[in-house]
Amino acid sequence: MLGNFSYHNATKLYFGPDSLDYLNEELPKYGKTVQLIYGGGSIKKNGIYDAVVAILKKNGKTIVEDGGVMPNPTIDKVRDGVRIAREGKVDLLLSVGGGSCCDYAKAVAVSVNCPEDPWEKYYVRYEEPDCNILPIGCVLTMAGTGSEMNGGAVITNPAQKLKRGHVFGQEAMPKFSVLNPKFTMSLPKRQMIAGIYDIFSHICEQYFSGEDDNTSDYLAEGLMRSVIHSALIAVENPEDYEARSNIMWSATWALNTLISRGKTTDWMVHQLGHAVSAWTDATHGMTLAAVSLPYYRLIMPYGLQKFVRFATEVWKVETQGKTDLQIAEEGLAEMERWMKKIGVALHISELGATPEMIEGIADSTNLLRGAYHPLTRDEVVKILKESL
Amino acid sequence: MLGNFSYHNATKLYFGPDSLDYLNEELPKYGKTVQLIYGGGSIKKNGIYDAVVAILKKNGKTIVEDGGVMPNPTIDKVRDGVRIAREGKVDLLLSVGGGSCCDYAKAVAVSVNCPEDPWEKYYVRYEEPDCNILPIGCVLTMAGTGSEMNGGAVITNPAQKLKRGHVFGQEAMPKFSVLNPKFTMSLPKRQMIAGIYDIFSHICEQYFSGEDDNTSDYLAEGLMRSVIHSALIAVENPEDYEARSNIMWSATWALNTLISRGKTTDWMVHQLGHAVSAWTDATHGMTLAAVSLPYYRLIMPYGLQKFVRFATEVWKVETQGKTDLQIAEEGLAEMERWMKKIGVALHISELGATPEMIEGIADSTNLLRGAYHPLTRDEVVKILKESL
Repeated sequence: MLGNFSYHNATKLYFGPDSLDYLNEELPKYGKTVQLIYGGGSIKKNGIYDAVVAILKKNGKTIVEDGGVMPNPTIDKVRDGVRIAREGKVDLLLSVGGGSCCDYAKAVAVSVNCPEDPWEKYYVRYEEPDCNILPIGCVLTMAGTGSEMNGGAVITNPAQKLKRGHVFGQEAMPKFSVLNPKFTMSLPKRQMIAGIYDIFSHICEQYFSGEDDNTSDYLAEGLMRSVIHSALIAVENPEDYEARSNIMWSATWALNTLISRGKTTDWMVHQLGHAVSAWTDATHGMTLAAVSLPYYRLIMPYGLQKFVRFATEVWKVETQGKTDLQIAEEGLAEMERWMKKIGVALHISELGATPEMIEGIADSTNLLRGAYHPLTRDEVVKILKESL
Repeated sequence: MLGNFSYHNATKLYFGPDSLDYLNEELPKYGKTVQLIYGGGSIKKNGIYDAVVAILKKNGKTIVEDGGVMPNPTIDKVRDGVRIAREGKVDLLLSVGGGSCCDYAKAVAVSVNCPEDPWEKYYVRYEEPDCNILPIGCVLTMAGTGSEMNGGAVITNPAQKLKRGHVFGQEAMPKFSVLNPKFTMSLPKRQMIAGIYDIFSHICEQYFSGEDDNTSDYLAEGLMRSVIHSALIAVENPEDYEARSNIMWSATWALNTLISRGKTTDWMVHQLGHAVSAWTDATHGMTLAAVSLPYYRLIMPYGLQKFVRFATEVWKVETQGKTDLQIAEEGLAEMERWMKKIGVALHISELGATPEMIEGIADSTNLLRGAYHPLTRDEVVKILKESL
C-alpha cells in the first residue's frame, strides 16, 4: 500500500560511452572556479583526469585541486575540503571518482557556507543545512553507492570509530552526473565486486521490510534479477560492456529513493557494515556482504512471507512439497551460492576484524527499527561472531 | 546493453490520500492567475473541484475557467485554450482530471506564446517549442496515461481523422503532480479498466523491442507483475486502496521514460489504437486492448525469445517439454485470460468500428519502425480485420 509520500529527483544523468562530452553542456551553467575532487590518483593513470581537465580548460574554468579523498572519507578531510572551497571561492564542486568522492563533495557542499563544525551539525545533531549549498557535479568511475543521484553522504570519524550517513535534500544532490560504464572498467576486479554487493544490499535493505503489497517491491525484484544476472557475466569478463552498463544503471536506481517510496525499509546491514568499516577501514561493499547472511538468517522467521517471495520471485526456488521455512531457507542458500560465485567476502575476519573487536564493533552499531525484527545488542554480537 | 542516453525528470510528485494539501506548498511559487483545466464536470459532482478551488482561493489566486476538455482533446479545443490563456494572461495551467486534461494543458502551454498554429507546428511539422512555455501543475483523477510525469501530449484532429502524439521536453512537463489514489475511485469502473490496460500497454510497447540484455526490461517486468496483480484485485473491489495506489504509481513509472532508457521501443499498438480512436472516438485504453492480441501474435515469431521471456518471467509459464513457440503462445494466452478477467474490449467492433472503416483506419495508422517486425499496410489491415 502506498500511503503519503513525495518524490522529486532532478539530477540530470548522462549515460554511456560518450557521456563525458556532456560536461560541455553543463559547465557553462556554473561560475568560473571548479573544485576538482578525486581520490587516490588512479584517474591520473587511466586518462580520466586528463580528459576532465581538458574539458574544464576548454570551458575557461579555473581549477582548484582537491585530490586524496580516501575510500572512507574522514571528517578531517571534509574540514580540509571546506577550507579549500572557501579559500578558492569555488562555484562548483566536480567529483571525479566513486561514491566516496561524491559523498565527500556533498558533505563539503553543505558546510562551506555554514559556520558550525560539519561533524557536530550533520553527523551528531543530524540538522538540515540552513546555509547556501554549493552545486555539485559528478563524473562516476565506480558503480555501487548510488551517490550520483541521491543526497546521501557517509563520513567517517576515525578518532571516535564512527561511520555515519546523512541524507541531505534535493539541493545537495548532484545537479548532473556523468555515468560512463567504460570508466568503471578501470577499477580492480575486487572493487567492482564490492560495488556489486553494495548495489544488491541497497535493494535488499529496502525490500526486506513491510508486509504490504507494494509496487516498489516489484521494481526491487526487477533490479535484483538484473544485478544477479549481470554480476555473473561481469565477474567472468569485467570488460563486458553490456553487463557493466546494466550494473551501473541498476546502482543508480537501487538508491535514488524510487524503490523505497511508500514503504518501510530496514538498513541494518548497512549499520553493521559501517561499524565493521569504522574498526577495520575495510571496503564498504565487502563489509555488507560479510554480515548479510547471519543477519538475514536471524530475521528471516520474523518476515517469513517476504523471504518466501524473495526465494520464488528472485531466485526461482521451486515450492512444491516444501514448507515456507524451507523455501525461505533455500532462497538464502541461493543467495549465498551467488555471493560465493562472484567472490565477495563472507567473513569479517577476512576484512581485518578480530574477536577482540566484536564488543567495540557492537558499540559502534547504530540500531534501527525498520526491520522485521529490531536487533538487540546481544543479537548484534551474535551476528558479528557468526560473521567472523 | 545501455548505450548513450540522458535521463532528466524534475516533476515533483505528491502521492497519497492527503496529497492535495501540497498544492498549498506549490501554488505560492507561481503568479496570481491560474487557468483551471478540467473535463466534463465530474469533478464538480465528486467534490474535487470544490476542494481545489478552495485551495486556490486560500492562496489568493484568480481563477480562469477552462472546463469541457474531452476524453480525446481536439485541436480546436487547444486553440480555444490558447485564447483563454492569452486573454486571461495566466501564470499557471492547473489540470484537474485524467491524462486527457494534462495532455491538453501541455499542448496549450507550448502554444500560448507561439504565433504559429499548434496543429501545424507540433503535429504536422513536429517542431520543438521555441517560445516561452507556461508552467503546468496536475491533479490527477485517473491512472493510465502517465501524462503527470512526462512530456507527451496526444491531440486529435477530427476533421482529418488524425490522433497524434508529440513528446515535448522537460520545460513542458508538469512542474508538480498530485496523485491521490482515492480520486481515481470516483471514476466509473470501465474507465478504471481502460486506464489499467493503457498502463499495461505502455510497458509492453517499450518491452517488446530489442534483443539485448537491459536493466530497463527487468524493471518493466516488475511493473507488469505489479499491474497484473493489482488489476485483478481492483476489478473485484474498486475501493481497494492498496490495489488502486499500486496501479496509480505503476502508471507514472510505466511512461516517464525510465523503462525505455537505453533500448529501442515499439509503440505500434498505440499507433493502431490512435487510428481506431480517430475513427470512433472510443476510449483510448480500450482501443489498445482490442488490437493488442492480433498484433502481438503477428510479430511474435520475429521476436520469439522476448515473447518466451515474457511468458516465463511475467506469466510464470512452465517450460518443461515445450518448444519456444509453444511457450511464447502460452504467454499470450495467459495475457488474453487476464484481459478477459479484467474485462477490456477485445474487438474494435465493440468500440464502434465497422468493416467499412478498416481501410480508413489503416490510412490513419502511423507506421513506426521499432518493432520486431515493422508492419506493412496489408498487415495493418489484417490486424484490424482480426480485431473486428
